[in-house]
Amino acid sequence: MADAIVTTSETRKLAAPLSLDCGRSLDNVEIAYEAYGTLNASRDNAILVCHATTGDQHLASPHPITGKPGWWARMVGPGLPIDTDHFYVVCPNVLGSCMGTTGPGSLASDGAPWAMRFPVITIRDMVRAHLSLLDLLGVERLHAAVGGSMGGMQVLSLAANWPQRLERALVIAATAEMPAQNIAFQEVGRQAIMADPDWQEGAYYGTGKSPDAGLAVARMAAHITYLSEETLSEKFGRRLQDREAKTFGFDADFQVESYLRHQGTAFTERFDANSYLYITRAMSYFDLGEEHGHRIAEALAPAKNVRFCLVSFDSDWLYPTVESRKIVHALNAVGAPVSFMELAAPFGHDSFLLDVPALDRVIRGFLGQ
Amino acid sequence: MADAIVTTSETRKLAAPLSLDCGRSLDNVEIAYEAYGTLNASRDNAILVCHATTGDQHLASPHPITGKPGWWARMVGPGLPIDTDHFYVVCPNVLGSCMGTTGPGSLASDGAPWAMRFPVITIRDMVRAHLSLLDLLGVERLHAAVGGSMGGMQVLSLAANWPQRLERALVIAATAEMPAQNIAFQEVGRQAIMADPDWQEGAYYGTGKSPDAGLAVARMAAHITYLSEETLSEKFGRRLQDREAKTFGFDADFQVESYLRHQGTAFTERFDANSYLYITRAMSYFDLGEEHGHRIAEALAPAKNVRFCLVSFDSDWLYPTVESRKIVHALNAVGAPVSFMELAAPFGHDSFLLDVPALDRVIRGFLGQ
Repeated sequence: MADAIVTTSETRKLAAPLSLDCGRSLDNVEIAYEAYGTLNASRDNAILVCHATTGDQHLASPHPITGKPGWWARMVGPGLPIDTDHFYVVCPNVLGSCMGTTGPGSLASDGAPWAMRFPVITIRDMVRAHLSLLDLLGVERLHAAVGGSMGGMQVLSLAANWPQRLERALVIAATAEMPAQNIAFQEVGRQAIMADPDWQEGAYYGTGKSPDAGLAVARMAAHITYLSEETLSEKFGRRLQDREAKTFGFDADFQVESYLRHQGTAFTERFDANSYLYITRAMSYFDLGEEHGHRIAEALAPAKNVRFCLVSFDSDWLYPTVESRKIVHALNAVGAPVSFMELAAPFGHDSFLLDVPALDRVIRGFLGQ
Repeated sequence: MADAIVTTSETRKLAAPLSLDCGRSLDNVEIAYEAYGTLNASRDNAILVCHATTGDQHLASPHPITGKPGWWARMVGPGLPIDTDHFYVVCPNVLGSCMGTTGPGSLASDGAPWAMRFPVITIRDMVRAHLSLLDLLGVERLHAAVGGSMGGMQVLSLAANWPQRLERALVIAATAEMPAQNIAFQEVGRQAIMADPDWQEGAYYGTGKSPDAGLAVARMAAHITYLSEETLSEKFGRRLQDREAKTFGFDADFQVESYLRHQGTAFTERFDANSYLYITRAMSYFDLGEEHGHRIAEALAPAKNVRFCLVSFDSDWLYPTVESRKIVHALNAVGAPVSFMELAAPFGHDSFLLDVPALDRVIRGFLGQ
């Protein structure tokens, strides 16, 4: 894989307050982002990549805490499907997150961390922040917006609300309205965090304690939903972890237990618990048709000149194909150009992050050059 | 529905120590059970009903804590599919539980609660306890053993290990070897409990504190897996709870959130957290073929004269039909008489507890009179 070269990795402060769906507005919003490639003279080669729940701006550069490759390093770079030799690729950390963009761990105007005083944000608020950043970068109209999972929801919100800002929308493994089962799993994660006494009603910053145990449990529960039963069976099955027999105890006897515990613990080293609360809240609130009598088609009607591509994965039970089909039907109803593919991939919801060559081909083909 | 009349509701102490799979043995084991109907003179009309993870002996009598009807009141009683006018129906609380049968909350010989000193038990150990109770009740050979979910696993273990003790085995929504995804969900539940500081390494009895917050989170996560996505969508969808609009906060805005929180909290009033640890541990350890080179057929070979009936539900994603099919294939391989039905029911794994008339007919037909 060719090395992706980060053109820019910085944090920009918005000049104007950011108006939010809740009715409040946020001053002094900072947005951390990375950009790859170069904006051309006609400023028409920009691609916005929107990250998922616990993702960040480190799209194709090593993560500063974990040292791991960027979360889409396989997809973004010179000669790769999102080709940085041709495109100017911008990936902002979402509003409410914890990797440099303003969120509950940031300082409020009184000099103390926002914590739970931070306003509850929506997916559309995240998009507002993205657009303010694009304004600063001189990008009026995107060649494309691309995202998987919560990233796909941002792309949908962008297309529905600001259709003039993009030519193409690539929505992977997403939904137009969060289903009840997903709301339920998101609620379990939040309850796990808020049940941890170290959460301290969210005011744990600077106390030397943080709700790591609760956050780890939240991550463990969520992580199961990102994988397919097939992946779990093939990767782990009932194999034991570094032992010949069951211990008749509560250690991690099984590899899948050990793996999950590691996923939970490692997550707490790179993510803020309050950000997890706010971002999952934004997801559970996501409902594209809410202001349109719950008619997704009506919400997407303004986007009828945007070119859409929808992708789902056959093993994804968290955002299954039926959710993508609803969007496709709505786009068909308003006459928007849309292509749709359900890809065969064994990895469940996480397929959009993993080695699925068919996805590479779809993305490369849809983006053109 | 006809009133079921409990013939007996009592606790019996086993005379002999109970030998366990872990190599230890338990003295002074007590078993709480309920019995319905009357054992006939030839002692051949007894049916053992095995309860699921968080079930209990209150099969068709009101629960003493919640006041709710017994968990299978719709199925067990005079004239009902498990007809107490004809059968003597015995339902013991499983070993390791908390409704009267010896478990981690019981007193050890030193007069203090067992807590985490309680031995790790298996599904087969639960069956050993059942058989010791049946010995006391004068039941040498069962007309049938019946169970759903973990109850079905007990029935499988009974048939495989003590085939001479039963004529019929009715196994509903179960598996012969716990799949990795289920082990993963069970581990999340245990980690939620053990992350709660009030768990106190399990020694919370008598401290005035118990890990209710962790137990509630564990229950919430498990509860989602018991339901189908369809049930959650139809029952709750994205409907709001007693409000006209989202609050932009972290209260239970959605009905599904409120419902889940209630499920979690209510559970802590009737169940012991350590029992939850031990029982889910027994489930994750369940692997009928483990001692037979992981060949389920070899494990079931001794049961080839037992009449089996396997039932799965098409909406059950926790113990899906494929798990029942594996058992059916193994029984076919050893020439055991077996009937198998995948029933259409919308309720997910919980279908075995809910109003599925087709299940009633299957059970009535299989048990005969």
